[in-house]
Amino acid sequence: MKEMKVQASSHSYPIYVGENLRFQVGRLLKEEYSSIMVVSDETVGELYLEDILASINHSHLYYTLVPAGEESKNIDQFYQLHSKAMEFGLDRRSLIIALGGGVIGDLAGFVAATYMRGIDYIQVPTTILAHDSSVGGKVAVNHHMGKNMIGNFYPPKAVIYDVQTLESLSGKEVRSGYAELVKEAFIGDEKFLEELFSIKLGDLSSTQLTEHLYNGIKVKAAIVEADEKEAGIRKYLNLGHTLGHALEAENGYGKIAHGEAVAVGMLFALFISEQVYGRSLPYQQLLEWLHTNGYPLQVGETSPEALIERMKSDKKNIGNNIQMILLRGTGDLTTEEVPEQELKEYLKTFIGKLV
Amino acid sequence: MKEMKVQASSHSYPIYVGENLRFQVGRLLKEEYSSIMVVSDETVGELYLEDILASINHSHLYYTLVPAGEESKNIDQFYQLHSKAMEFGLDRRSLIIALGGGVIGDLAGFVAATYMRGIDYIQVPTTILAHDSSVGGKVAVNHHMGKNMIGNFYPPKAVIYDVQTLESLSGKEVRSGYAELVKEAFIGDEKFLEELFSIKLGDLSSTQLTEHLYNGIKVKAAIVEADEKEAGIRKYLNLGHTLGHALEAENGYGKIAHGEAVAVGMLFALFISEQVYGRSLPYQQLLEWLHTNGYPLQVGETSPEALIERMKSDKKNIGNNIQMILLRGTGDLTTEEVPEQELKEYLKTFIGKLV
Repeated sequence: MKEMKVQASSHSYPIYVGENLRFQVGRLLKEEYSSIMVVSDETVGELYLEDILASINHSHLYYTLVPAGEESKNIDQFYQLHSKAMEFGLDRRSLIIALGGGVIGDLAGFVAATYMRGIDYIQVPTTILAHDSSVGGKVAVNHHMGKNMIGNFYPPKAVIYDVQTLESLSGKEVRSGYAELVKEAFIGDEKFLEELFSIKLGDLSSTQLTEHLYNGIKVKAAIVEADEKEAGIRKYLNLGHTLGHALEAENGYGKIAHGEAVAVGMLFALFISEQVYGRSLPYQQLLEWLHTNGYPLQVGETSPEALIERMKSDKKNIGNNIQMILLRGTGDLTTEEVPEQELKEYLKTFIGKLV
Repeated sequence: MKEMKVQASSHSYPIYVGENLRFQVGRLLKEEYSSIMVVSDETVGELYLEDILASINHSHLYYTLVPAGEESKNIDQFYQLHSKAMEFGLDRRSLIIALGGGVIGDLAGFVAATYMRGIDYIQVPTTILAHDSSVGGKVAVNHHMGKNMIGNFYPPKAVIYDVQTLESLSGKEVRSGYAELVKEAFIGDEKFLEELFSIKLGDLSSTQLTEHLYNGIKVKAAIVEADEKEAGIRKYLNLGHTLGHALEAENGYGKIAHGEAVAVGMLFALFISEQVYGRSLPYQQLLEWLHTNGYPLQVGETSPEALIERMKSDKKNIGNNIQMILLRGTGDLTTEEVPEQELKEYLKTFIGKLV
């Protein structure tokens, strides 16, 4: 098991990454709680809920399941989880455990952040992708007009990552998660980036997975420690997300995997960066790696105009200009306001090249 | 104009109390904002919205009104205000101004706390009662199973109190607000309590009102500075609220004025305290003052059993015991877990005495 600490403004919390950790959740809780509610989805619940419940010895232990998928990250589900918490009699000394991927982490985390104005929660992520959302305390639900628009900054009390739960992931989910790891490598770790470009997603060992998650989380943790509320450098974590979110929204949330959309967005950021800064960047290398590992790169029927409209409602924007996260090189990220017309041209050329 | 500063964990903010301040809201904003949305209700909006808007010189100034009353403090209204904010194009550098009583402050404050994970807001309270909720950063909406169950601790950037807006209040609203002032006096200011017991609510001058609000806020501010997240002494601010909330819930939110319910709750707390601690407390004095000033003291058709059930779901409770805020004297508050059966007996005797 690997362990690291993240310092949030309100408290510090541990992140554990390793094998068999789902059997040790109870042991890893550092505080006494009056009651505990595990929130999971139907798919993950089927696989791991029993293990988690068995690991916790508590007389007021409850669970509730929501349907799997991004559709559950909405205000109704949020409200229903509050109802559940009240029915179970959760109080201010209770704990919520989010067992699942990013949707569960964001949703259950936001319920914890707002239940009686905030109770403790821990993240037990079961996807690679969720390494990103489980660290840093961003919790939210979607609004029909925008992803993650309603939420809080509310750090967990611990993140417990059992890499064995990742073995059941589909190829699509592995690709989705590794896109975020590549992003973190671009932000902060040249050697990690080289390592990632050298592997094939089809044959990863538990040891490699632990190592990669640990490295990715380290980059992420360093950034959220420096900028918890996304006032400065935390924005860099949105590399690839401006177009990525637009692709997700245009296709309908959940239809295209988040990380797959981010992968295309990242490639787009490299494409623009090469032209804006007149530098040679690993655009081609990323493109080939994405190809080799089966990432879908067709933007499909989505029109550039519609994507631009989506990008205009991004949370990073100030006023009406579209802010893009670009880079001059690995570890050297920037934010640029790209004029709408220019962005449209870039996007058309970029999409044309991918076809 | 009187001014004081409150130190929250994230930032410090000013509270202004005085006449004509609604014409100076723009001048009192200390930061530049990309856009501003004023949230008010239809009743208050009719009276003061124009003055507020006219006081702010900004090219992206918007407003939205919700129906007046506690019913608006729900999850649907919360979601609709998020829609409005998105339609108006609010971004992370935008400001929300909550113009109204406690309902608007709690609702619009919670929208600000969660819009893109938190933007700035200021409180412009237009009731006496709202002096309490506008300071300290508690924001929330009601859940059908409990008042204020969904919310955050999220302090405003400023509180701007124009005492002239209080002239339009009904007798009921004045009583409601003064109950919280009496509560604050009980908590921290013997001289203030004497002063309050000496006045008649029917003939208050602007100067007295400013003075009383200032004193009440001072007590409140000192407590929230010491205990922002309600881990300790902030609980004392719930004096009278355990029964008060139960009365409100049993009668249907908004049917009985919050402060009027708290007044009865406070009297009940004094009643129990005299017996538990064997001391003479100003129970009789409070009872007479409430009578003189027209507070409704009949608990009416509400059954003690139903009230006890409501009290059991109070946010202060840990586990299944009912926690009461009691006092040994002015400025000497305590929390006691009162066994359910005992509490029921107290309540029956208390109600019997009031009839």
